[in-house]
Amino acid sequence: MTQARRFAAETVGTALLLAVVVGSGIMGERLAGGNVAIALLANSIATGAGLVVLIHIFGPVSGAHFNPAVTMMAAIRRELPLAGAIAYIAAQLAGAVAGVWIAHAMFGEPVLQLSDTLRGGPAQGFSEFVATFGLIATILGTGRSLPGFTPVAVGLYITAAYWFTASTSFANPAVTLARSLTDSFAGIALVSVPLFVAAQLAGAIAAVGFFSWLFKAEAAR
Amino acid sequence: MTQARRFAAETVGTALLLAVVVGSGIMGERLAGGNVAIALLANSIATGAGLVVLIHIFGPVSGAHFNPAVTMMAAIRRELPLAGAIAYIAAQLAGAVAGVWIAHAMFGEPVLQLSDTLRGGPAQGFSEFVATFGLIATILGTGRSLPGFTPVAVGLYITAAYWFTASTSFANPAVTLARSLTDSFAGIALVSVPLFVAAQLAGAIAAVGFFSWLFKAEAAR
Amino acid sequence: MTQARRFAAETVGTALLLAVVVGSGIMGERLAGGNVAIALLANSIATGAGLVVLIHIFGPVSGAHFNPAVTMMAAIRRELPLAGAIAYIAAQLAGAVAGVWIAHAMFGEPVLQLSDTLRGGPAQGFSEFVATFGLIATILGTGRSLPGFTPVAVGLYITAAYWFTASTSFANPAVTLARSLTDSFAGIALVSVPLFVAAQLAGAIAAVGFFSWLFKAEAAR
Amino acid sequence: MTQARRFAAETVGTALLLAVVVGSGIMGERLAGGNVAIALLANSIATGAGLVVLIHIFGPVSGAHFNPAVTMMAAIRRELPLAGAIAYIAAQLAGAVAGVWIAHAMFGEPVLQLSDTLRGGPAQGFSEFVATFGLIATILGTGRSLPGFTPVAVGLYITAAYWFTASTSFANPAVTLARSLTDSFAGIALVSVPLFVAAQLAGAIAAVGFFSWLFKAEAAR
Repeated sequence: MTQARRFAAETVGTALLLAVVVGSGIMGERLAGGNVAIALLANSIATGAGLVVLIHIFGPVSGAHFNPAVTMMAAIRRELPLAGAIAYIAAQLAGAVAGVWIAHAMFGEPVLQLSDTLRGGPAQGFSEFVATFGLIATILGTGRSLPGFTPVAVGLYITAAYWFTASTSFANPAVTLARSLTDSFAGIALVSVPLFVAAQLAGAIAAVGFFSWLFKAEAAR
Repeated sequence: MTQARRFAAETVGTALLLAVVVGSGIMGERLAGGNVAIALLANSIATGAGLVVLIHIFGPVSGAHFNPAVTMMAAIRRELPLAGAIAYIAAQLAGAVAGVWIAHAMFGEPVLQLSDTLRGGPAQGFSEFVATFGLIATILGTGRSLPGFTPVAVGLYITAAYWFTASTSFANPAVTLARSLTDSFAGIALVSVPLFVAAQLAGAIAAVGFFSWLFKAEAAR
Repeated sequence: MTQARRFAAETVGTALLLAVVVGSGIMGERLAGGNVAIALLANSIATGAGLVVLIHIFGPVSGAHFNPAVTMMAAIRRELPLAGAIAYIAAQLAGAVAGVWIAHAMFGEPVLQLSDTLRGGPAQGFSEFVATFGLIATILGTGRSLPGFTPVAVGLYITAAYWFTASTSFANPAVTLARSLTDSFAGIALVSVPLFVAAQLAGAIAAVGFFSWLFKAEAAR
Repeated sequence: MTQARRFAAETVGTALLLAVVVGSGIMGERLAGGNVAIALLANSIATGAGLVVLIHIFGPVSGAHFNPAVTMMAAIRRELPLAGAIAYIAAQLAGAVAGVWIAHAMFGEPVLQLSDTLRGGPAQGFSEFVATFGLIATILGTGRSLPGFTPVAVGLYITAAYWFTASTSFANPAVTLARSLTDSFAGIALVSVPLFVAAQLAGAIAAVGFFSWLFKAEAAR
């Protein structure tokens, strides 16, 4: 019973996250009149602010992962059993797709779309590696020293990462897959998804490895 | 006597909120030279920042609802008696109208205006449903886990919601009605008000239902 | 001896505040290529962020008034003796002028300038009344319920007030007078200063009156 | 052993800082279509947000200096032995250069570059003096009264300082030297580096002197 509620929190939270990401992208694109910088500025501020709020709302229920890479990291660190992790990821994927469709409905767009925005090549892949490394660093670092600040830190990180990575920092396999279903500002062609997801998982694993070493030493000091 | 002061807090707080919403909309429109994205960016940042401050100022006196949907929710949850709720809503409406007029006076515009900006259709209605669902989620979620953070969370939520909803997130029946009295950036034609208010109330009720279920389970864990 | 340090804190803090206000105005004007909305957005974000930091730095030493209206309010409320208040205001004025000159020196502009930007009329005066009413409300309101949040609240308030008042919210007699000494984005012609200062003092007095009533009732509840 | 981890924290943290500064500069330049104000707005928001996060992640390990001027100040105040300070500065320089190269790789640019952006003259030097004075004031001031707020204060300060100084506030000798290795928005010609570094060190020393006096008096009150 309680399990059902945790999965509901991951589903609804991830849906709202995607509604924010895709919705603010559509709004930015519509209003900015071709000035992509202003669209991305609005998109990055809205996403960061939205994330802070969503993690505060759903965190006490499910941990507010909203992200298979975060769930995978929790499983590696034995904070979540494997079956629970798989159910979390399924909930995130279902919520992410629903969130894209909610955004389309809000903006009066066809609900079912496919993106044709190609995002390929080694620079994009490396960007996603760095983006996810930084996201996991943010969660592990603040989670260790100041857990109450983690939601704000994640929001600030994502606002920055939209700008400092060439890929605008997807950093989330569920978000990446769902964004293949929107042919708007936030879209990514399905063919570009595998590279992004692989790079994200590699970045997450690298961050877990590096910070396990970095913080273990500190504990032993 | 104390009652009078609580109503005064709702009136003055809602007036200042509308002065911020409408005033920053006029300023954005005047300066942005047709670039609506920049006007909305300024409007959303000013409104979010202003809300954080206003909730902090008036919260200890009246709870800083500034919003009939929030007051209705408090009445449903028996945090406020029905008579008190009605008086709160009257105070909010009076304050909201005064705030629009204060904004007009500050910008040297005719005080009495009527908007002719039509905002209709199912997409706009669905946007207001989602916007208010999210606002009530923010209040209930942070109010449960971290009440001191609620004012900041509401400000961040509204900044995001101006962008991720197609309606720019009115999410407040008093604000909606008062904004029919300004023929500026923030205006809404009176004919569009009923749809917005109905969608807002539906979104608020849905949020109260969903989060009562979600958080009850947690408490019983 | 300690007195000297408190006056030094008011002087240096107000100087840095004006360096931020005038400097970010010049930068915005130079870079924005005629788009005043973007210049004001940068100006308002920089000023708000700078204020938060400056109040944190100097607050524990002098209270970080940086504003004769705030000092006057403290004197009315007997938090500061009259002689101390006069010395504070002198320190603020000296610092404000120095800050304008620092900004000019940083941007390679002639140090001595006079503004010819007329800012007159009842709408501008009413704007300054509202702006200062809101600033004092912010200080009194958060100072009563959550004093540690006051610096952040003042920064957020000013960011919002740059946008929702037609005058871009000077809300500070020392800042107003000093800004007559810059012929840049932030300037105000000397002839417009008396109206602004009078409106600011009226707004401050109105806020002290209203909130004394509002918060006294609460205390007696 | 623990020493190695502290140096690793300074290296990786400074690398990520430069990736944010240079990467968001490149993104801003690419998207803004010649509107430098929008590019700087994105650059300043991303850098400020990124700094808050990075200081939270690495602060508990190494203090998160990321800046030879900060390390020098710590050495002057005997918070760090001289040998440790030299090792910190070496780690910061190595990390800063790596961060620039990471940014180039993310954006598919040639890794090895040299800037030809001249930034000279007394106004630029004075700007760096003021910028670094303010940064050290932020660290000393909040470190004394509210150490938990220092990371946020540094982020807010840098966002403001990008705008209120004519040099866009490098305020960091390691950052300055590394930015000579990028021919993008954030670049600085190698020939302009010595002036910047000298002004930064002078500003840091002036701040240490002034605030030692200002805060000592308070302690004795």
